[in-house]
Amino acid sequence: METTPDKQDLERLEAVAGNGLLDRRAFLRSGTAVAGAMMGYTFVRSAAAERLAEEPWSLAPGGISRPYEQRSHFEEKIVRTLSNPNGEPRTSHARTPHHLVNGTITPNGLHFTIVHSGTPDIDPDKHRLVIHGLVKRPLVFTLDSLSRYPMVSRFSFVECGGNSAPMFSKEPIQASVQALHGLASCAEWTGVKLSTLLDETGIDAKAKWIVAEGADSLALSRSFPVKKALDDAMIALYQNGERLMPGNGYPMRLLLPGYEGNMNVKFLRRLKLVEQPAMSYYETRTYSQILPNGKAFRFYFLQEVKSFITHPSPGLALRGPGFYEISGIAYSGNGRISKVTVSADGGKSWGEAALQAPLLPKAFTRFRMPWRWDGGPAVLQSRAWDEAGNVQPTRAQFVAERGETKEVPRVLGFPNQHYNSLTSWAVDAKGEVKHVYA
Amino acid sequence: METTPDKQDLERLEAVAGNGLLDRRAFLRSGTAVAGAMMGYTFVRSAAAERLAEEPWSLAPGGISRPYEQRSHFEEKIVRTLSNPNGEPRTSHARTPHHLVNGTITPNGLHFTIVHSGTPDIDPDKHRLVIHGLVKRPLVFTLDSLSRYPMVSRFSFVECGGNSAPMFSKEPIQASVQALHGLASCAEWTGVKLSTLLDETGIDAKAKWIVAEGADSLALSRSFPVKKALDDAMIALYQNGERLMPGNGYPMRLLLPGYEGNMNVKFLRRLKLVEQPAMSYYETRTYSQILPNGKAFRFYFLQEVKSFITHPSPGLALRGPGFYEISGIAYSGNGRISKVTVSADGGKSWGEAALQAPLLPKAFTRFRMPWRWDGGPAVLQSRAWDEAGNVQPTRAQFVAERGETKEVPRVLGFPNQHYNSLTSWAVDAKGEVKHVYA
Repeated sequence: METTPDKQDLERLEAVAGNGLLDRRAFLRSGTAVAGAMMGYTFVRSAAAERLAEEPWSLAPGGISRPYEQRSHFEEKIVRTLSNPNGEPRTSHARTPHHLVNGTITPNGLHFTIVHSGTPDIDPDKHRLVIHGLVKRPLVFTLDSLSRYPMVSRFSFVECGGNSAPMFSKEPIQASVQALHGLASCAEWTGVKLSTLLDETGIDAKAKWIVAEGADSLALSRSFPVKKALDDAMIALYQNGERLMPGNGYPMRLLLPGYEGNMNVKFLRRLKLVEQPAMSYYETRTYSQILPNGKAFRFYFLQEVKSFITHPSPGLALRGPGFYEISGIAYSGNGRISKVTVSADGGKSWGEAALQAPLLPKAFTRFRMPWRWDGGPAVLQSRAWDEAGNVQPTRAQFVAERGETKEVPRVLGFPNQHYNSLTSWAVDAKGEVKHVYA
Repeated sequence: METTPDKQDLERLEAVAGNGLLDRRAFLRSGTAVAGAMMGYTFVRSAAAERLAEEPWSLAPGGISRPYEQRSHFEEKIVRTLSNPNGEPRTSHARTPHHLVNGTITPNGLHFTIVHSGTPDIDPDKHRLVIHGLVKRPLVFTLDSLSRYPMVSRFSFVECGGNSAPMFSKEPIQASVQALHGLASCAEWTGVKLSTLLDETGIDAKAKWIVAEGADSLALSRSFPVKKALDDAMIALYQNGERLMPGNGYPMRLLLPGYEGNMNVKFLRRLKLVEQPAMSYYETRTYSQILPNGKAFRFYFLQEVKSFITHPSPGLALRGPGFYEISGIAYSGNGRISKVTVSADGGKSWGEAALQAPLLPKAFTRFRMPWRWDGGPAVLQSRAWDEAGNVQPTRAQFVAERGETKEVPRVLGFPNQHYNSLTSWAVDAKGEVKHVYA
């Protein structure tokens, strides 16, 4: 039988904001009756609890261990959504299902990827990286030679400049968190600091920019400042412990923590030090948000502070009133997340969410907020701050500054970039969750 | 052409210990000539560096993005080694190739697994977890109901009590770091704290132990103290963001951070609170190291402080004198790693290694140490300390206390458990690396 929670017990819990948001510390007090009394919706209480059904997998030996472990076939539906499943000659997006994963690491199979001319099949032994231009000694590196250098590891998100672009729409597009925000993921990257390699080549004093070029057939190229190269740029060789996934730049990619996704050039084969940015296709014709006054930022490298709720979210309906944990991810190209607040009443009142340690700069941070849903309508939002003092804008603030969807000739590029306002999920009386503007 | 490093430049680098160990901070001084002058062994210097060969993958569009990204086929040789590849009716080990991964996260495909009766193919919708025995309210949970509870994430290693067992041998077994230490891995685990569920069931004051049982056909069971349950025990539902791998307990496992691997019961279906440990097969007949005096510890739950060098290691030969980074992993069931030292002269002198941040309790910590190999014989060792003040023993210290390989009737169990001394790799003049006792 389902249990009936004690209403009085529930009300003992400390509300911190309207419409059922509870103190984030409620569950840190292990052993208190408060926590115990408060859930009570989700289990089956049974005097015969210990009589478990003997399922077939408990009655016969199981399967053989594999050299490379694969997911259970029951999980095969957990996949990235593809924008170009037949590989037509155009851009291919593969989006992370944020509502179906948890924690902060994106597993390698589900890390988002975008490729503009397919995923090259690169022989790592033949791949080369050249560093040249305004250097003292132009050099060529193999994967093997890079492996002898000192390495570093860091957890870092990568996010496409076009992530969340559907939210430029004047009306809220009915889509999942995967469709709206699935072009951001987070992994542990290991490789050689670019500054280490630039110590080898030497840098001509005139060099201010570096043009990075990939070995894909598009030879995708982007410019970035030498200053970033000497800060935290990395030639990444490993993703969550193993070699990069093909769609993430195998056998090596540039990692520019906190910078726009495609500046983290994949299949990296060339770094040319120059005086001026190259003004390549992807830094001028696209990835430049056109502002309400018709102008555009010349460059917009940084992925600004953002957060969104992943649980619940569209497709994850609530099953009746009671306790839920609201959880999601927050990140900023500026550094660490310092605070996330959550609202259940469309922004009228806010409570502070718990942030899962460790809090790492330019990496996903999971936030969690206990919530008691009373079965009535609710609008869930999250809002993040970073350690540099930036705060995620409301949609109204964002639109006032950056505008809504631009209809421009394609020759002018893809104008809907760098969207980072709050996301709002409306919960109806049936527990269905949909995307709204609030 | 290969470059010729300037010997004088090399000698400017600060030695911290014998046989070429260098100051770990040598590479933190980005932009100094010191670092630049010091490598110089590994790249090709070329005036025509910018003329890269046009490989086929740069000349035609690449492949289609897949819903679930797979590794490059060039990486297919990077696998776990299997002790029972044909699935005979006995234990199956699958070992992590530590020398072929990097960073601190073990990718899900390469996380070690041990199963004693194969890997069950569990339907997650039919799986149940019961908590009963000395509780106030016996309860049954489904995967769905668990998903409504507050969750936590933590990076945690899991290590088999029998990891490193080959090192009990009187002679050093010639094997790779995968064969010697491959039964330890590290992941980000996300799930529900066991203390949260015990708040729901309530705990009878007489309950001191919990018997955990798996849904595999062996119904593997282990006892652990209620005190651990109320500390950091977790019912883990996600491994590096996605649902647990089948070999790691899909759809749920007990996670007892820092405790012996098989106490982290996989396919978890039952937790029974009791007054006394169950003295199950795996806590009495095996996993008990027999001491030189013929006695054994009754229980030995904690995985003690350990470290080993993964790069270089057997199978990763050095290619001529010059710079190398010595790197490896360290961990302790007691908490954080506080220090790792490295020796290149078989323990005569030691230098302190750099520890990769973030330093997390009961998780892998990667250490790194710059080394200039002069081409002569070297014996590489690492030694770890944890924040509780424990230090990894030398082999002589370990053997004096715990003994070497025991030949005992199998009925008495598997006596070679909980080995944690230093590991020594000898490098010969050809750069080959082999396992030695030193």
